[in-house]
Order: sequence, then C-alpha cells, then structure tokens
Amino acid sequence: MENFEFYNPVKILFGKNQIEKLNELIPYGSNIMLTYGKGSIFKNGVYTDIKKYLNGYKIIEFGGIEPNPTHETAMKAVDIVKNEKIDFLLAVGGGSVIDATKYIAASVYFTGSDPWEILLKGAKVEKSIPIGTILTLPATGTEMNGNSVISKKTTQEKLSFSSKKVMPQFSILDPGYCTTLPPKQVANGIVDAFVHVIEQYMTYPAGGNLQDRMAEAILKTLIETAPAVYNNPADYGSMANLMWCSTMALNGLISVGVPEDWATHQIGHELTAFHGLDHAVTLAIVLPGLWSVLKEYKKNKLLQYANRVWAINNGNDDEKIDKSIAMTIDFFEKLGISTRLGTYGISEPTIDLIVERFRKRNWKGIGDRELITPEIVKEILIHQL
Amino acid sequence: MENFEFYNPVKILFGKNQIEKLNELIPYGSNIMLTYGKGSIFKNGVYTDIKKYLNGYKIIEFGGIEPNPTHETAMKAVDIVKNEKIDFLLAVGGGSVIDATKYIAASVYFTGSDPWEILLKGAKVEKSIPIGTILTLPATGTEMNGNSVISKKTTQEKLSFSSKKVMPQFSILDPGYCTTLPPKQVANGIVDAFVHVIEQYMTYPAGGNLQDRMAEAILKTLIETAPAVYNNPADYGSMANLMWCSTMALNGLISVGVPEDWATHQIGHELTAFHGLDHAVTLAIVLPGLWSVLKEYKKNKLLQYANRVWAINNGNDDEKIDKSIAMTIDFFEKLGISTRLGTYGISEPTIDLIVERFRKRNWKGIGDRELITPEIVKEILIHQL
Repeated sequence: MENFEFYNPVKILFGKNQIEKLNELIPYGSNIMLTYGKGSIFKNGVYTDIKKYLNGYKIIEFGGIEPNPTHETAMKAVDIVKNEKIDFLLAVGGGSVIDATKYIAASVYFTGSDPWEILLKGAKVEKSIPIGTILTLPATGTEMNGNSVISKKTTQEKLSFSSKKVMPQFSILDPGYCTTLPPKQVANGIVDAFVHVIEQYMTYPAGGNLQDRMAEAILKTLIETAPAVYNNPADYGSMANLMWCSTMALNGLISVGVPEDWATHQIGHELTAFHGLDHAVTLAIVLPGLWSVLKEYKKNKLLQYANRVWAINNGNDDEKIDKSIAMTIDFFEKLGISTRLGTYGISEPTIDLIVERFRKRNWKGIGDRELITPEIVKEILIHQL
Repeated sequence: MENFEFYNPVKILFGKNQIEKLNELIPYGSNIMLTYGKGSIFKNGVYTDIKKYLNGYKIIEFGGIEPNPTHETAMKAVDIVKNEKIDFLLAVGGGSVIDATKYIAASVYFTGSDPWEILLKGAKVEKSIPIGTILTLPATGTEMNGNSVISKKTTQEKLSFSSKKVMPQFSILDPGYCTTLPPKQVANGIVDAFVHVIEQYMTYPAGGNLQDRMAEAILKTLIETAPAVYNNPADYGSMANLMWCSTMALNGLISVGVPEDWATHQIGHELTAFHGLDHAVTLAIVLPGLWSVLKEYKKNKLLQYANRVWAINNGNDDEKIDKSIAMTIDFFEKLGISTRLGTYGISEPTIDLIVERFRKRNWKGIGDRELITPEIVKEILIHQL
C-alpha cells in the first residue's frame, strides 16, 4: 500500500426531508446565490422546499447552467457574485450545476488574469466562497469531493480541477427528489458511478486489499441496483442505493493508497468536446475499447474483476477476461447506452482530430503507468467504431 | 434505507514516516500533553521520532494509561492539564490511550459535579481540548471516531460515550510502528475490528445494500489478512491492511442508514469488568453464543454472511448458519483466542453476577430490536461455558 492522506469534511444529510435542516446549515443573514440548471428544480419539488425552509433569506437565482457546464456561463455568475456581494453558494441539481458552482466559488477570489488557468495550468485555488449542495441526480460524486469538470466553448476544451477549498460544507441527498428523473439520466448516472469506481480500481495489484474489496462492493451494488432503479426511478429504496453508491464512488475513499487510471475519462472528455455526447455515454464507449487493447497490462486486475464482480470462474484467462468485458458491455447496453461510436455517427475523422489533440498537448502517455500514447488512443477508439 | 447524517473530519495520515508532518499538524507554541500507556512507545521508535519532529515544543508526559483505561487514571491527567494549562493532547498508543485521552479532553471543561456523568448519564460534552493521535496498535478504530470506553475501578463498571467534540483533529497511522507488536495483541486487534463490523452488520435486512457489501469487504479482508499479520507482524503490507481495516471498521461509514446491535460488546464489557479479560477475548466468547441463541432472529443476515463472507452454499439454512458460526469460531481460535468461558476459569457464579447487573440497571432488552433480556444474556453465556 502506498502512503496516503485522507480528509473529507463534507457533511452528508441523507434521506427524506433532510432539506428541513437548511436553515441550520446556512447562517441566517447570508447573501445566497442559488445556482441551478435547466429548470428541473421547478418540477421535482426542491425549489418550493428551498423557498419554504429558507424563508426570509436573501436569495439571488442563477439558472441555466448547462450539462457539461461552461467557463462562459460560470463567468457570468462570477460577475453577479461580485456585484451582489454573495457570500454563500447553494447548488441545486446534478453534477453539472455543482461543478459549475465550485468553479464560480474558486473564480471569485482568483487573482491571476483568467480563472481558466485553474484548469489549464493547475493554478492554485487560494480561497473560495462556501458551498452547500442539494443533489437531484446521482452520478458524479461531486457532492462529496473537491473536483470539478468545466468546458470552454471557444476552444472546445473540457478540463478538470481539484481543490479542498471547493469541497461543499454540506450536501443534502434526498432520493425523493430523484424519483422523477427520466430513465436516460438514471442510466447515465449508473454508468458514470460505475466507471468512476473502475478508474480507481482497474490498474495493477498494489496491496490495497480493502480498497479493492470496497471498490468491488460498489460495483456489485450498482449491478444489483441498476435494473430496478432504471426501470422505476420512483422506487425510493433503489434510488437511495444508487445515490449512496455514486457518492461513495468518488469521495476519495476507494483510491487511498492505490494507483488510479482516468484514461477512459480523458479520452471520453474529447468525445464530448467534439460531439457533445453525454459524459456517461463516452465512458461506456471508451472503457471496453481500452480494456480490449490493454488486456495484457491490466490482466491481473481484469481477472480479479471477472472473478469477484461477475463470478466468472470457467475458462482460461483470456476467456475469463473476454467474458468480463462482454458482461460489462451488456450491462451498459441494457441501460440503453450503446458502446459503439457508429451509433452516434462518429467515424475516423473525429478519431484523427482527437488523436491529434493528444499529440499536440505533448502529454506523456496517459493511464496508470502512462502507457497510453496517442497511437494507443487511436487503437482504442478504432476498436469501438 | 433509514435517514442518516455522516460527518467525519478526522484527517488521516497513513504510511511510512508520516510522523515527519507532526510540526505542521500541531501549532508551534502549543502546550502539549503526550499521553501514553505502559511504555511500548519507548521500544517501537515512536517516542524518539516525536521528540525529533516536535523539537522545541513544550511537552508534558503522562504515561501509565492502562488497558481498559480507568476513570481514576484519567482524573489524575485532568488535574495536570488544568494546572499546566495544556492546550493540545497528543495520544500515542492503542485504543486505551486514545480513549482515555478523549475522556481527559472532555473532562477538563466539564461543568457538572463529576465527569463520570458523561458515561453514566450521557451528560453532554460541550467543549474539549483538541486531540491528535499516533496509533501504534490497530484494533478499536477510535483514531477516526468520537467514541471512548472507560472503566471505573471503584464500581467495577465499564461504560462508553460518544461525542463529535472528541474526534481527533488528525491521526497518524504508520504500520511501521506496529511491526514489533506481540502476536497476542495483533490477534486481539483482528478480533476487535471483526466484531466491530459484525455489530453494524449482523442485524436484519434494512435496504442498505452498499453498507452490507462494505461491511463484508472489511470482514473478508480481515479473514484474508489475519494469518499473515498474526504470524509475522513485521510484514508491513499485511499490517497496513489490518490497520486500514480496523480504522474503516468503526469510522461511522458502514453503519449509516442501517440498524446496529452492540449487544456482544455490552455483555463482553461485563466480563472485562468482573474478570479483567482482554476486550477482544470477551467479544470472541460472546459472539458465537449470541448467534447460536438468536439464530432465528438473525436468520436472514446470518445466511447472507454464510454465503458472501464464507462462501457457504451447500446444506439447508440451519446447516449453513451452523457452519458459518463454526468457521467464525475457528477463525478466532486459530488466532489463539478460545471462545469458551471455562478456558478463562469463568463459571456460573460470574454469569449470575452479570445477569443480576443487567437486571438491576433496569435496561430494556439490548441488541438491534432490544430483544435480549437478562434471561437471554444468561442463556448466551451458559452456551459458552
């Protein structure tokens, strides 16, 4: 096991009616900006509840944050925050809203020339406005970490940053607000959480035995929960399990002391940047290709995954691995998500653009041992045509 | 799943040489009390390292904290803390030292007549001195929670309290300091962590699917790690896994949203109070008796445990459960811990004393559904004669 530090002070309030505690969580007299997305908060009941339990608070609303939230939108919010002297950000929605809110919180006090440097150059976040979240879409895990992924329209880039300074002070997770989600969004959330776990697990054996088993615990729970919650998002018990899985998938616990990969995400982000594909869809496409191409490098963990997650015990090593990849594809496709680029009208020219971008950035190889060169990125994507 | 709140701001620094960060963790100028036990800190190297990395700090030493730490000893420390105006407590040792330090920290500012009321009457801890810990014995999980168990010599009582106010600010977990532990203490630590998980798991199905699988992840990792670390505590990798398992076993994560039991602990505490048995030994004795007597009430979870933790798939339900109990006993006994009262010279008169104590306290039944009356306590202990 490698050395690690773990510190996660996000307070989680999970379950029915936890929103009633909002006025204990946000100091009275705060100058709040309520951030949200395309308006689902007006349908699932959360907006009415916020108004009720923050009665008497000064609240400025900032809606319209898009899926794959943009730098451009966040900068508009930053102007308002500065002009209105906002001192608390309440993010209500899914991962996009919360990620954008983290970027807003970090940008307000940024002293460099352009907050985009936080993502592009890893400029340090020195200070941030406090954030609270009410999650209405289980998927990204952003409600219990310091991560944020932001896109820039003008350059078609999608990059991420991470800072303890933007970890929410609290996050309210009420599965009741998620029961009206369209099945497509539920499917995306399941795949997103699943691949988050995979990025922290499918590397090479590193002596983190509990971390491995905890990762497998989340994967197995997602597999077991998926059909029920996908077919009936109104099933509170299943939604509760999905919600807690997606939070636990990326709150830092399963990655302590072990290597991580994240190549699937890095390649997937480019598919979103160029073609606007849903984040989860890009992961479902890239993952099987990456495993197929890197089968030898990931052999030990793929075999462990086949055995412990899918209970595959027959056949030789190759057959076991192939079967585990096939079962993973089947899992994604049963959620209505095709793992083939062709389905989305993406062909070789886009692949060439993506590979060129990896080349230009002059990055070392990506993945757990930086083995994935631009040429291997090409191989992975061609595998999924 | 039941509603829950989760908040654990303890900073964990895990691995080799993390002690080098001590002077970043404790503000310079602090007036420190260094609490420790019977002197193992002078053998495992930690004392020398503390002196090195806290060079220039004002440190008062308070040693001699006993296993099953007592109210009486803690009160001596409280006097010194008050007289010397101590403002930081650095606990170095195992669970006993850390538990005692939490009680010291809570007692200093206690405004009632006797700090023992915190344990006896659940008096609230309003304020506490900040605590940091350096763990040298993986077992109780106290390094990442707000719990403390204290004994009172004069009344032969052993009680616990829990408060967020006494959660350590940081805990340093360096498996390197544990490699000189005697195998007996390693065995106790394994059993302690194992039964902590069980108390949060072996109840009844409550829809906490991920919590169940995470509990099973810890149990399986302990079972897989136990032989290596028991036979060779100097094996860093195995000790690291044991250490992280024992911390994760009681940091509050696996119990969120699900019922808990703790009857094994409550009955076990009385065996320690009357006969001075090691805490872990009492758990190994009580657990198989409790399962055998309450087999019907815990049937669903016992079957899940048999299947998922021990891979028992053959036989009827009764046979599966009996086999899982037998395998658990075998697991404890292979660690050199007998599960029979007779081995420790304990017979029916002691059982009668214990049952009488449960009766006198006029408690409702104990356990997850308060089913365990004093009569059932008797049955459980007689089962283990």
